[in-house]
Amino acid sequence: MPSYSSQTPEFALIAKHFSRPTKRAALGIGDDCALIDVTPGKQLAISTDTLVAGVHFFADAAPEALGHKVLAVNLSDLAAMGAMPKFFTLALTLPHVNDAWLADFARGLFRLADQYEIELIGGDTTKGPLAMTLTVLGQVTPNEALQRDHAKLGDDIWVSGTLGGAALALKHLQAQVKLKPNVLPPALARLHLPAPRVALGLRLVGVANAAIDLSDGLIADLGHICTRSQLTAVIGWAKIPLHPALLSVGPRVRMASALAGGDDYELCFTAPLSAHEKIREMSGDMGLALSYIGTMRAVDSTSNGQSGAPAVVVIDERGREMTAAEMGLHGFDHFLTTSSSK
Amino acid sequence: MPSYSSQTPEFALIAKHFSRPTKRAALGIGDDCALIDVTPGKQLAISTDTLVAGVHFFADAAPEALGHKVLAVNLSDLAAMGAMPKFFTLALTLPHVNDAWLADFARGLFRLADQYEIELIGGDTTKGPLAMTLTVLGQVTPNEALQRDHAKLGDDIWVSGTLGGAALALKHLQAQVKLKPNVLPPALARLHLPAPRVALGLRLVGVANAAIDLSDGLIADLGHICTRSQLTAVIGWAKIPLHPALLSVGPRVRMASALAGGDDYELCFTAPLSAHEKIREMSGDMGLALSYIGTMRAVDSTSNGQSGAPAVVVIDERGREMTAAEMGLHGFDHFLTTSSSK
Repeated sequence: MPSYSSQTPEFALIAKHFSRPTKRAALGIGDDCALIDVTPGKQLAISTDTLVAGVHFFADAAPEALGHKVLAVNLSDLAAMGAMPKFFTLALTLPHVNDAWLADFARGLFRLADQYEIELIGGDTTKGPLAMTLTVLGQVTPNEALQRDHAKLGDDIWVSGTLGGAALALKHLQAQVKLKPNVLPPALARLHLPAPRVALGLRLVGVANAAIDLSDGLIADLGHICTRSQLTAVIGWAKIPLHPALLSVGPRVRMASALAGGDDYELCFTAPLSAHEKIREMSGDMGLALSYIGTMRAVDSTSNGQSGAPAVVVIDERGREMTAAEMGLHGFDHFLTTSSSK
Repeated sequence: MPSYSSQTPEFALIAKHFSRPTKRAALGIGDDCALIDVTPGKQLAISTDTLVAGVHFFADAAPEALGHKVLAVNLSDLAAMGAMPKFFTLALTLPHVNDAWLADFARGLFRLADQYEIELIGGDTTKGPLAMTLTVLGQVTPNEALQRDHAKLGDDIWVSGTLGGAALALKHLQAQVKLKPNVLPPALARLHLPAPRVALGLRLVGVANAAIDLSDGLIADLGHICTRSQLTAVIGWAKIPLHPALLSVGPRVRMASALAGGDDYELCFTAPLSAHEKIREMSGDMGLALSYIGTMRAVDSTSNGQSGAPAVVVIDERGREMTAAEMGLHGFDHFLTTSSSK
């Protein structure tokens, strides 16, 4: 049901920007449902993410970047599963219908969609506070998806790209730090135009045991792999690949951005030692840094001999094992305050 | 990516209300994606609908009814396609996390989900202005879906149940009319607790040619079938099945509610004359009124001999053919004004 009545000029404008000929769906936009075929022998991987103005982005954010980002964060979930992107739906809530805004938003959205050959098959456009929810559908071979609960004792822990750039850019926009002009643009690009690691995810199928995308920060997200796999992750602070902008700030902000900063959308994955060389080669082939940062070990016993909780432990520069709490790190908070300056 | 950080008490509360053991999905809530199998030989039907507080419902609406309604309006889209409900994702945006509210919302949602055996497989919970987006997935046999563009010249037009009850209840809540205590509760039930016509949709496969669900009003929604099928619909006002509450209001409000009122979620479908008896039998079997209201005819020629536009034409009580514009009817407006009284 289109919530902008299909008799109105607003509806016509929305249709103008989002209606494109369907290439792969059996039936695309314009009916009660879209219809799709699933390749025989494949499973569907499905994920939904919402971005809300004033929480996940500033209400006056550049619409082209927004169109990119909302699809990128959803593609990132498919990447973390090792799934091939296929289709998506878009639910867009707008305070008012603006032709130029919609044109820019659609440009950013479809540029990324075309790059990953993922097709918009339906959605809903409603009036209300600016927000967008995407549902992405991808395909995987049964039993080959990179699940969070498949990490094995002794697995190496890897991370793609660099960490902390997006969180540091957000701190700059919130006037908590002031980045120099030479390091600001690449950090802002990490925040506004994240690159989903779809190609990496697909190549990790059959190589990695478990994977997750880094939306809430390394410690929080790797913590999900630990909890679901009932293992502890031990990572070395010195091994974390830092975004270059992090070198221009003090050690506290640097560590918080790299370990507890969100929105990087890199992949963190675990793989057996036997895959080490293959992953190094993959990194060279793809021109994408893949860094070995630690190991999955058994959950520590507590002092009274009972099994403790799965956790992420960081070896600091002095070789000490520290938990996130001991390091004074908290989970990444997506919630912008609407009064934040930019 | 859960947007309520998974380390917070808010996240634990949300997980408490929405995490249930997965019965049919290969992998349910808790990973980057859900994984589902599609029955070999079937297509997937997919639809997304958003409900926004202050637009589609009052911000202080009863959460149990909201949980029902957001799933019902999405199930209605599957019904209109003749699809069997299978899975859904829920994106829920909340201004704050309230245990009692979530418990009631989840109760309404899951009661309806269990009734139609549709399984929650994932989603996202974010902080922000109250809104909810569902994406539903159902299954159809290829080439059997009830598409809007499949109406045929000479088809009978049918509608299920009664029309106008939901729109009239909304007018009452907005103090535009005042319904008497004996007719108010059933009208409010139509607005707050719509019954998706899933069973009817499934039975119409192979019987009806085209179908749509009535979310924006009969004239607007039947108009979609006309446009997509390049035909004109001629319907008789006297044949429209009116919600009983409409008999208590004047002719203007009655006509506007029945023909241009939204939110009824009945099905409107077209079928060949040869299916007439079968549809009557179906109605008896199901205990659901199915009313024959008109016919699909060729698009009228204009005075200069060119083909005109597809349209919905209503035969009024005096036997005159009237367009919606001539009757002073406008499309249903989902947009509540936030200052409306209840």
